[in-house]
Amino acid sequence: MLNKIIRSKETLIDFPCPNKNQILKLHIAYLRAMLKVGILGGGQLGRMLLQAAANYPVETHVLENDDNCPAAYLCRHFKKGNICDFDAVYNFGKGLDAITIEIENVNVEALEKLENEGVKVYPKPSVLRIIQNKILQKQYYSQHQIPTSPYAILNSKNEIAQSPQFLPGVQKLATGGYDGRGVQIIETITDAEEGFDEPSVLEKRIKIRKEIAQIVAIDQQGKTVLYPAVEMVFNKDLNQLDYQLCPADIPKEVLWKVEAIAVSVVRNFQSPGIFAVELFIDDNNEIFVNETAPRVHNSGHHTIEAHYSSQFDMLWRIILGYPLGNTKYILPSIMVNIIGSEQHSGNAEYSGLKDVLTIDNAFVHIYGKQQTKPGRKMGHVTILSAEKQDLIHKANKIKQALSVVAETR
Amino acid sequence: MLNKIIRSKETLIDFPCPNKNQILKLHIAYLRAMLKVGILGGGQLGRMLLQAAANYPVETHVLENDDNCPAAYLCRHFKKGNICDFDAVYNFGKGLDAITIEIENVNVEALEKLENEGVKVYPKPSVLRIIQNKILQKQYYSQHQIPTSPYAILNSKNEIAQSPQFLPGVQKLATGGYDGRGVQIIETITDAEEGFDEPSVLEKRIKIRKEIAQIVAIDQQGKTVLYPAVEMVFNKDLNQLDYQLCPADIPKEVLWKVEAIAVSVVRNFQSPGIFAVELFIDDNNEIFVNETAPRVHNSGHHTIEAHYSSQFDMLWRIILGYPLGNTKYILPSIMVNIIGSEQHSGNAEYSGLKDVLTIDNAFVHIYGKQQTKPGRKMGHVTILSAEKQDLIHKANKIKQALSVVAETR
Repeated sequence: MLNKIIRSKETLIDFPCPNKNQILKLHIAYLRAMLKVGILGGGQLGRMLLQAAANYPVETHVLENDDNCPAAYLCRHFKKGNICDFDAVYNFGKGLDAITIEIENVNVEALEKLENEGVKVYPKPSVLRIIQNKILQKQYYSQHQIPTSPYAILNSKNEIAQSPQFLPGVQKLATGGYDGRGVQIIETITDAEEGFDEPSVLEKRIKIRKEIAQIVAIDQQGKTVLYPAVEMVFNKDLNQLDYQLCPADIPKEVLWKVEAIAVSVVRNFQSPGIFAVELFIDDNNEIFVNETAPRVHNSGHHTIEAHYSSQFDMLWRIILGYPLGNTKYILPSIMVNIIGSEQHSGNAEYSGLKDVLTIDNAFVHIYGKQQTKPGRKMGHVTILSAEKQDLIHKANKIKQALSVVAETR
Repeated sequence: MLNKIIRSKETLIDFPCPNKNQILKLHIAYLRAMLKVGILGGGQLGRMLLQAAANYPVETHVLENDDNCPAAYLCRHFKKGNICDFDAVYNFGKGLDAITIEIENVNVEALEKLENEGVKVYPKPSVLRIIQNKILQKQYYSQHQIPTSPYAILNSKNEIAQSPQFLPGVQKLATGGYDGRGVQIIETITDAEEGFDEPSVLEKRIKIRKEIAQIVAIDQQGKTVLYPAVEMVFNKDLNQLDYQLCPADIPKEVLWKVEAIAVSVVRNFQSPGIFAVELFIDDNNEIFVNETAPRVHNSGHHTIEAHYSSQFDMLWRIILGYPLGNTKYILPSIMVNIIGSEQHSGNAEYSGLKDVLTIDNAFVHIYGKQQTKPGRKMGHVTILSAEKQDLIHKANKIKQALSVVAETR
């Protein structure tokens, strides 16, 4: 109870206590002490959060099952444990002042209990409940008049045949899908037999002209700032992200709509944090929200070097109650993911790293993952340049030079 | 012996060994494995080195007596120990591939032994021998025709009277001086009685118009790159660094001389590493080398955000055998140290931090030192702007807003 009282000035003032001075002192002591902040998940996003945390007075904690993960050695306290397990998350969080995530797939019940006990959670568990379930996420967009592709909610694969108006479509499992898993294309009713036989969403496929990511930061008082929108350029043959360009090359009128829609997505969550809203733009410049990540995100990596306040810096500002940072870019940028090569599994070896490091203004981030696997995100490179053509030229150079292969002995 | 062989391709090829293939395999394995690199000292320079290390595949180790130091929780392995103690340094270094420093005051004998045993040391111990002794450092400049203020070498204070041509002067202890200690002004012969009575240097005082720091990076092949020169602006009343401006506001012809002199200082050391050369410019645009730091340095903090490759990034590139980075600035910058306030000792509290964080394009670095002391470096702020007046205006705003005081209970 006291814990809750000293957390908020408002509560303090209204508290009918015989010794307000004593509590005031505790409150001041709390404000001065280094905040203890936990991160659920120890991947590259956690690692970059920790690199940024070292600029501020904050005591960092990480919970992650793999004690050799990218974030394991950059935090003040590392705890080995399963972020999907109630007890692991609750026990990790109960001594902390605040907790955040670097992946959505965490135990929400534990976070709700922690929130009730006064631990601040970024984003709020109520947001995670919606995001973790693709059906709830779609309904959230509909409920708030946020444009998204037309969809049907299915309980089994038999229902695909009853929804021909959503074909060709994309079927997404309500829960359990992650990073490409739990998603498949249904071209025609004849494909229905191959469909997922579980609760899912069937979305009508949009003819995508551009894919955009819009990062929005929202502080504890509800103030929002937007990063410049990012354009995700895909390799159509490999269906793989080729690079991300910032700022996105879209007309002003479209950009304004993107921003308005993204702010609407985020404001209605009523939660502080960093949010990455992924949107599709079709040939008629119609905009559709695809998905939202309520956390620091792959589409914001470039902000480390290319922007005044990076997404990682920004999240710390939000958690520590500091003013929001400047989201403007210093220079336009392009970001290339470093991906584990096909048919290579084993100890990671970075072929061509020296060639990449000869490229002027290329910032290399290797995540420190020991093992490579086909398609695994092993690092990224951000390039800064005032010229879009220079950015694309260098991005292609990097994609050709660099590969992550398995060590041969 | 094998250890030495597999470290260099050249040695390998000439080695008369019956089983070259086996050694070649070891050599390749060595090149692929993550290098184990140690840092002597765990202060803010170590902390920033570790933030940068997290971008590369390197296993970091830190040796420092204070296990709550700024670098303690950002490295893979922390070892508590005295960096001036032979055994502590030798035992720390003997399992490592390379070792570097974040402070000059370390045990050189241990580093020499490690170097002989095949551990790469940045900078070479031979450089540290010279830098650690102010007499040897002055003689080094003379020997290599590097301009420096006229000086006498003294064994005792009696010799001050025999050197009136160097008065008014600055007397510096040969060894044991650090961060302002072991240095005093001798105005006239009558002050001689107060002089240090130990081996020392008496330098004729220069009428300083500007104080410049020039950082030079030199790789394992001897290739050098220079950062733009930095101007150190002092508060004459407090004799304290006010701020550092980059690039320095000096005529081109003077800059070229500064660069030529700094390169000469560094090249003659014949050692890879990062070197910060501090120089004075007098009213006649004559240049004098004051001191050299053979390591990452306070005068390079701004390179983290304002330059493509920071001094910390650059040192890792050198140690890991990567190509040198781009030293150009992205934008001009100013750097303000955050210093512990006079008459405040105790648990550090940062007053005005939120005000500073409202300033656009100000990058705050708090070093995580628990205790503040008068004059202690507790953090720094870098500001980027194309306009010098904007930089100076914001630097003054920060100096007024921010202070580090001791917590009162």
